[in-house]
Amino acid sequence: MSYAVSLDDLRQARERIQPYVRHTPLLPLPALRGDLPAALRLKLENLQITGSFKARGVFNTLLQLSPAERERGVVAASGGNHGAALAYGAWRLGLPATIFLTERASDDRVARVTTWGAQVVKHGAVWDEAHARAVEHAAATGSTYVHPFDAERTLIGQGTLGLELLDDVPALDCVLIAIGGGGLIAGMAAAIKQLRPQTRIIGVEPTGAASMRYAVAAGQVLPLPEVRTIADTLAPRAVCERTLALTQQYVDEIVTVSDAQMVSAMRWLWAECNQLVEPAGAAVIAALQNSAVDIGAHTHPVALICGGNAAVESAFANYTV
Amino acid sequence: MSYAVSLDDLRQARERIQPYVRHTPLLPLPALRGDLPAALRLKLENLQITGSFKARGVFNTLLQLSPAERERGVVAASGGNHGAALAYGAWRLGLPATIFLTERASDDRVARVTTWGAQVVKHGAVWDEAHARAVEHAAATGSTYVHPFDAERTLIGQGTLGLELLDDVPALDCVLIAIGGGGLIAGMAAAIKQLRPQTRIIGVEPTGAASMRYAVAAGQVLPLPEVRTIADTLAPRAVCERTLALTQQYVDEIVTVSDAQMVSAMRWLWAECNQLVEPAGAAVIAALQNSAVDIGAHTHPVALICGGNAAVESAFANYTV
Repeated sequence: MSYAVSLDDLRQARERIQPYVRHTPLLPLPALRGDLPAALRLKLENLQITGSFKARGVFNTLLQLSPAERERGVVAASGGNHGAALAYGAWRLGLPATIFLTERASDDRVARVTTWGAQVVKHGAVWDEAHARAVEHAAATGSTYVHPFDAERTLIGQGTLGLELLDDVPALDCVLIAIGGGGLIAGMAAAIKQLRPQTRIIGVEPTGAASMRYAVAAGQVLPLPEVRTIADTLAPRAVCERTLALTQQYVDEIVTVSDAQMVSAMRWLWAECNQLVEPAGAAVIAALQNSAVDIGAHTHPVALICGGNAAVESAFANYTV
Repeated sequence: MSYAVSLDDLRQARERIQPYVRHTPLLPLPALRGDLPAALRLKLENLQITGSFKARGVFNTLLQLSPAERERGVVAASGGNHGAALAYGAWRLGLPATIFLTERASDDRVARVTTWGAQVVKHGAVWDEAHARAVEHAAATGSTYVHPFDAERTLIGQGTLGLELLDDVPALDCVLIAIGGGGLIAGMAAAIKQLRPQTRIIGVEPTGAASMRYAVAAGQVLPLPEVRTIADTLAPRAVCERTLALTQQYVDEIVTVSDAQMVSAMRWLWAECNQLVEPAGAAVIAALQNSAVDIGAHTHPVALICGGNAAVESAFANYTV
């Protein structure tokens, strides 16, 4: 499949969503232990509203709905972060929203959605099953299904993070980005490579859910025989034509990390940076700590911390009054 | 007591410590729920190296030690954050360090110190007891006691955060700062009021450890009859002459918050900003959420999130692989 997104579309999206999302900070000093390159900086997109980049695609979608579509509301299936962002966007703009989560979704993920007034339905063991049910629900109710990655408006919204990062780091020469369904890396890579083609773009997937690497190797979108990872937000069984096409065109390489490596990287991010993130948010750090990729030759590398919605309820038990 | 710190000293300190500390970010968009003023921004000093502002005073002290003093090493008593910062500073500069914590210090606080190779001694029920023992230890061993707040170099180091904040927000018209021993607010207020006297400076203390308000009311430093708060890093029984003098001169008002209000504010910071902080770090938010102070008239207010070292070990239990 040939597929492209234009810089014009990306720039318009950035302007459209600007009043609704945060320009997230770069962690200002290099990391100090863990054998990471001294030049590395972290883009803390876990500080985005609702804790992940997903708010970008959500607002780019919702702000283009017609009044009639707005009235009928929105629905999505989500590993958690897209659902939280959609619930927030719907709350902010006054739309009804229904979010399908898998039956295994943690209480924390459910709470992140219900806090914004959206309805939660738990269905299926994996994202793809929740997705199928959510699509049926949208068809039956006339509401708009907002896909977490296989939709142009979503992709372009996530791509605004590429424009923002180039503003933060004009000399960007390398960026590491985690891959779930591929919407983030596809959108960002399209933005970055059209403006600064020499930037090396590295994707990171869980070893147990390497759906993009599988698709790239096969030359087509194929569902993984099995998905097994602690990184629930990186766990769709298959990417999609759009994200595969942009990845083939713009992403330089894809590396994988194990669950144990992601958890170890989560601990490092907490100890060194006081950022508690979910496993997906730590995947790029895990790739560097375990030499899955060597970025030592770069002078302006950035690791994108894509999401921070860790389960912390048990930590609050330490603060009972 | 009359006491002053000069802008020259503050500026020199900032230059001195600049290679060792982080310029921390302002959270870029206003908070979105919780009835906080829309103009409010958060200065995320919990992103400072070792998770609190304490690294500033530590580096300003350590970098002025003589070679002989460096060799004999440093010692301190700490609620946890000063100890972690001193341990880190000693590690970075190659000095031996011994940190006295109270017997109640959590495993998390101990780990934050030992991870940098410092020795930990647990002593006493409250900070003042640990402090007395640490001072004896310093005298007996010839090492340098680095006071967490009653020391000019410490105070001036913390004051660099005032200069940094004015760079971030030149039109700053109000700032909320938590008070433990008072070193942070004293240093910051001295910096800010000398450069921008119209800025309103509001101190926030735990109701159960309001040592600065007690001293201001008495017109002298006096130990509280009792200290009872969940905010272990805001819990010295008494402030000191230096911090009282600067507070009397520069701080406009002091308000108090309960433990329950701080814990509720911790939850808010996690839900809205994905920042997990300790109770002290949430005290300024608690003051706003509970109308302890009204800042609605200000157009450029900032709440300083001073520390993020919450106990999270139990949260990692959710990520066992």
